[in-house]
Amino acid sequence: MTKITQIQDFLTSKEAQLAIFSDPVTVNYLTGFACDPHERQMFLFIYDQIAPVLFVPALEVARAQKLVTFPVFGYIDSENPWEKIKAVLPNTSPKRLYAEFDHLNVSKFQGLQGIFSGHFENLTPFIQNMRLLKSADEIDKMMIAGEFADKAVQIGFENISLEATETDIIAQIEFEMKKQGISKMSFETMVLTGHNAANPHGIPGTNKIENNALLLFDLGVETLGYTSDMTRTVAVGKPDQFKIDIYNLCLEAQLTAQEFVKPGVTAAEVDAAARSVIEKAGYGEYFNHRLGHGLGMDVHEFPSIMAGNNLEIQEGMCFSIEPGIYIPGKVGVRIEDCGHVTKEGFQAFTKTRKELQYFDC
Amino acid sequence: MTKITQIQDFLTSKEAQLAIFSDPVTVNYLTGFACDPHERQMFLFIYDQIAPVLFVPALEVARAQKLVTFPVFGYIDSENPWEKIKAVLPNTSPKRLYAEFDHLNVSKFQGLQGIFSGHFENLTPFIQNMRLLKSADEIDKMMIAGEFADKAVQIGFENISLEATETDIIAQIEFEMKKQGISKMSFETMVLTGHNAANPHGIPGTNKIENNALLLFDLGVETLGYTSDMTRTVAVGKPDQFKIDIYNLCLEAQLTAQEFVKPGVTAAEVDAAARSVIEKAGYGEYFNHRLGHGLGMDVHEFPSIMAGNNLEIQEGMCFSIEPGIYIPGKVGVRIEDCGHVTKEGFQAFTKTRKELQYFDC
Repeated sequence: MTKITQIQDFLTSKEAQLAIFSDPVTVNYLTGFACDPHERQMFLFIYDQIAPVLFVPALEVARAQKLVTFPVFGYIDSENPWEKIKAVLPNTSPKRLYAEFDHLNVSKFQGLQGIFSGHFENLTPFIQNMRLLKSADEIDKMMIAGEFADKAVQIGFENISLEATETDIIAQIEFEMKKQGISKMSFETMVLTGHNAANPHGIPGTNKIENNALLLFDLGVETLGYTSDMTRTVAVGKPDQFKIDIYNLCLEAQLTAQEFVKPGVTAAEVDAAARSVIEKAGYGEYFNHRLGHGLGMDVHEFPSIMAGNNLEIQEGMCFSIEPGIYIPGKVGVRIEDCGHVTKEGFQAFTKTRKELQYFDC
Repeated sequence: MTKITQIQDFLTSKEAQLAIFSDPVTVNYLTGFACDPHERQMFLFIYDQIAPVLFVPALEVARAQKLVTFPVFGYIDSENPWEKIKAVLPNTSPKRLYAEFDHLNVSKFQGLQGIFSGHFENLTPFIQNMRLLKSADEIDKMMIAGEFADKAVQIGFENISLEATETDIIAQIEFEMKKQGISKMSFETMVLTGHNAANPHGIPGTNKIENNALLLFDLGVETLGYTSDMTRTVAVGKPDQFKIDIYNLCLEAQLTAQEFVKPGVTAAEVDAAARSVIEKAGYGEYFNHRLGHGLGMDVHEFPSIMAGNNLEIQEGMCFSIEPGIYIPGKVGVRIEDCGHVTKEGFQAFTKTRKELQYFDC
């Protein structure tokens, strides 16, 4: 069954006639057409029984037509896109239709409501679920994204120096990745030294790498349309025993959660597996974010691995496991792998060793 | 008058009691607090008469509190943000309120509608207009962003080689920029050789730089919270006369528009000034995008310089002027400066020379 047929079956089951996709990532997922229309309009219209229609900015029409087998329409900047959509669509009077409420902004929604008088429902949960369980092909691509993340962090390690700034190391990592054909990191690479790592959302800058401290790398790549995300924290020089103890506590939490994952447990239980390790040691308050997040074509997607999420873990789900302990002014550690769930448990896409590594400069 | 007072005056003039900001860039513009909450919730609530409230993910609270003088509240991932917002806000019963409809997605809008039963209006036009006319301080920052774009394109020129790929040159540009402290390009850098430049949204790859062809660079940086955007097309080796003629036609269009800009003309007239040059020469169909776009904290913002936009150009507006001619299979040229409007006319932030430059490899 193709993805489009799956959506048509969903529409039929809901007695709905049209699904409207506005998220460029979803459009890419469903059609293979990757496009960022910026503030212009792009929609994929999938009907229950008639052929889909892709509507894009004029300058994207030719490229889209090579990738999809159904009609593609474009509009130029000086045209009113809503009037054009109304004019080209084969049916604008479905009674019940679905749109991506977690993506669609209110202005665009009002634009669509000007075309369609039917009742709108939220398509986001369906498409999140559809994207939730990755196919073997998707997992292959994510393994490759994971391998590149391992390479990237290795480049980071090779460039550790007390003369280097956080930004210098980031520049080197991204340069080498680009040379290896990675056009895009999946988010802004973070290299955070000592005190800066103690901030869970610290911002890299011109801080020189501190000696006798921990150094945190958080990075990922985007390749073949899929993302990776990993964090490693390493020792520069000889950090004091307290820092090493916090590191090992975080590692224990990470490994505990990773081993706990299997089909049938809940996302909340996975979070709790890691969190209880840190809480028992008395540092619960310093682990102030969820354990992990789904990833795939987006680096943050469904499911959220956190308290309160009773979603059952299933084979094919892909997510990160990334406990962190941040004690302001003292120490910051995060250890993260991304991976997928198999019958046997969690298989990481990122394989860089996690026992504390030491770098002498 | 502070920005917050301006918003309060706007609310009073509209007999509204609350403005809700959800766009992280707007929140930064109004408060100086830069934060990407990803899929978490972040809102700035500005009341007509009582103190604003900033609501952010828990791990951002401490940083936000250092930057704003009014109350900041956070929520952790396992809490329901909507319930928390309802609990912390001093007043949830305004009759009339404004939200950023061009940013807010339908799901978040429904979340807010669960808290506020008042009537919602669109805040986007007001905030777009507020951001439209840049202050002297903002223009200073954009000049710096422009200078860095000039440096970046210069690095690109220095790395032109028939042995290099498009991606190699991009890697070198971004590496040098990072080393100079630019943490972020304002969009994905484009280096497009010969045939690839003929596509207005071509994607850089492992194409080696073609000889006797044109080579296009489109790039910008983000610094101090502000962006730049520029395009230069140069000659590698000895392109044939047709390519040179098309280049010079595009340059004439760019200069014509740039000289035409002054307070009082309309955005549509500026677009027409460039377009008519290209149309008269018979190549109108190959200039298939608007002439330019506003920029500031976002690289694409208000105003759009295009047919149909009768907005009057005013002192303090910042935008790009970027005509392009793309003849598939033959030649692609785009020349772009970003700048601001003064009493005298358009002052470019980007100053790299525009007469066709030749590089022999």
